[in-house]
Amino acid sequence: MDSVAILGTGLIGTSIGAAAVRVGCGVSGWDGDAATTAAAATIANFRPAATLEEAVEGADLVVVCVPIGAIAGVAARALEAAPDAIVTDAGSVKVSVVQGVAALVPASSRSRFVGGHPMGGSERSGPAHAAAALVDGIVWVLTPSEESDAGAVDGLASWVSRLGAQPVRMDPARHDRLVAFVSHLPQVASTALMGLAATEESDEPEILLLAAGGFRDLTRLAASNPALWSDILVANRTAIARALDLYVARLTAMRDLIDAADATAVERTFSQAKAARLTLATKPQVRAGVAVIQVPIPDRPGALAELTLALGDGDVNIEDLQIVHSAEGGRGMVHLTVSADAAGQTASVLAARDFDPTRLA
Amino acid sequence: MDSVAILGTGLIGTSIGAAAVRVGCGVSGWDGDAATTAAAATIANFRPAATLEEAVEGADLVVVCVPIGAIAGVAARALEAAPDAIVTDAGSVKVSVVQGVAALVPASSRSRFVGGHPMGGSERSGPAHAAAALVDGIVWVLTPSEESDAGAVDGLASWVSRLGAQPVRMDPARHDRLVAFVSHLPQVASTALMGLAATEESDEPEILLLAAGGFRDLTRLAASNPALWSDILVANRTAIARALDLYVARLTAMRDLIDAADATAVERTFSQAKAARLTLATKPQVRAGVAVIQVPIPDRPGALAELTLALGDGDVNIEDLQIVHSAEGGRGMVHLTVSADAAGQTASVLAARDFDPTRLA
Repeated sequence: MDSVAILGTGLIGTSIGAAAVRVGCGVSGWDGDAATTAAAATIANFRPAATLEEAVEGADLVVVCVPIGAIAGVAARALEAAPDAIVTDAGSVKVSVVQGVAALVPASSRSRFVGGHPMGGSERSGPAHAAAALVDGIVWVLTPSEESDAGAVDGLASWVSRLGAQPVRMDPARHDRLVAFVSHLPQVASTALMGLAATEESDEPEILLLAAGGFRDLTRLAASNPALWSDILVANRTAIARALDLYVARLTAMRDLIDAADATAVERTFSQAKAARLTLATKPQVRAGVAVIQVPIPDRPGALAELTLALGDGDVNIEDLQIVHSAEGGRGMVHLTVSADAAGQTASVLAARDFDPTRLA
Repeated sequence: MDSVAILGTGLIGTSIGAAAVRVGCGVSGWDGDAATTAAAATIANFRPAATLEEAVEGADLVVVCVPIGAIAGVAARALEAAPDAIVTDAGSVKVSVVQGVAALVPASSRSRFVGGHPMGGSERSGPAHAAAALVDGIVWVLTPSEESDAGAVDGLASWVSRLGAQPVRMDPARHDRLVAFVSHLPQVASTALMGLAATEESDEPEILLLAAGGFRDLTRLAASNPALWSDILVANRTAIARALDLYVARLTAMRDLIDAADATAVERTFSQAKAARLTLATKPQVRAGVAVIQVPIPDRPGALAELTLALGDGDVNIEDLQIVHSAEGGRGMVHLTVSADAAGQTASVLAARDFDPTRLA
């Protein structure tokens, strides 16, 4: 797969194109918007094409990076225009894409389609913010259907590894079911919480005085792009409805335990969730074996720099850093996540600079 | 209120004692555990007392800082032992405390009790981590009942201001209703989400591969202290049950819109929540007029130090900093929150050091 066409050159398409150029592939790119094609070609250093057909001519691999609702149609055109190429996509939801392809593409060509979901991106959009580094180390899910050719899937997985990402094979329905829990459900839970507090707040302005760190954590996702998310949620509506049903059932069970003043059962539920949370690490690569260290920070310019500089000097890599402002108040407290191996080094480096670290986990 | 007794010398009690010493009050302290009393007295530089009665002798003000279930009983003893003192407390829930005091204290003494909730603290506990700075600038809710003496409330509010905190008066039921939304409900929502994913995960280990930034944000609270939270939730069960009912109703309405593929209505719901979220700032003091700036960060030791050092050198105070690892992947991206006035300075300082900042909000 040395000859690659990118269809749709927004943030993800242009980044994938740049990563393919980086490993020596010949890359062409096309976007429905000619100015976007031109901008992307300059940034990622690939060949701009005036039409979809021109882009896919001679390609071994076509990567469809258009919005979810347009994927199946563009993939169908690519499968027809490039009768020997493997075609994949970059959509966040997979069952609806596979169904769309099955409806639009003749059976003889469907073996060349393999769905994909490169789990990278950022809150930015457009080719101007693209970079090959966006695919470094990310999980890139491949979701072959029963009709996908086994050789095509293997070839695509090798190509994904060559680009620097981590290929993970998964049935489309299983992909959609799992991301419903860990990506789509959190989005809905956050939005509902923010909406509820805002409604309550309309005649209670002081509610915001009382809103501290925990509320901020839970409502951060509520600031995401509404149009993007409504597309994703509707495309994955069956799995999300099921996840929401299970979430509501769990909330209702906890509500009833609290209402019955069953402190023992409430504590047990919290202990189980705490144990599960502590097995989660901050980045997939370092999930096992991390340490979380709490450090109070004076609230003035330069204070955080003293901390991060001390760690950089001490050769400690910060896996995660969050300013938590303490449990309920507005003061400065940092939670650092480092690898468990580096916990001792972190503590001694910080103590030597008069910080007061405490290991939480 | 120059003579103050602290009953219960854990993290909060010892910190309040230290803050009172700092402004020149004479302070005595007592804890049910003699070793805790001794440790706290050394740290906060107050007079240790062997008994509750010895601690409150001659005090103008008694601050009860014991666990929620013990507050009313200790307050009743203090009101009896110090017949001229004002008595307040530091519990996170207020209606149950007021009810307990009403049940245990003769009507003639109840006018001297004024409930309180200093909204500071940290994930640590015990006097060893206490500091007067813990009360600096925090919201300190005062919840007088109808029986509380107006002069006592005014005097307590002045004393809270003198300590450096921000007194906010609120009816006990209103306090409990509002913290149910912005503090207790997020705790339950986070715990339920983590518990649900862990249950799903038991036969789907790969679900964690797909769990990225948003899921981490929403489940961070699930690592809190189970015993502490079960006490708080049960003590505020009426308000929490109501908040959970409203939350479940809102989630169910969103579920139905998604299930009906009503993308327009889903997008509208998300837009409303996004607008509300953007009015929330990171610290109560700077809620209005903040800017959020996104900066990509290389994933290596010292990279974050370059960023924070540049800002410190440029005299920019960081209100909040979070490593977000992009929308779905595991890569390094920082969201900085600074005051809106400092947004231009932040961008130019970072650009001068070859960072690539983008203002998000």
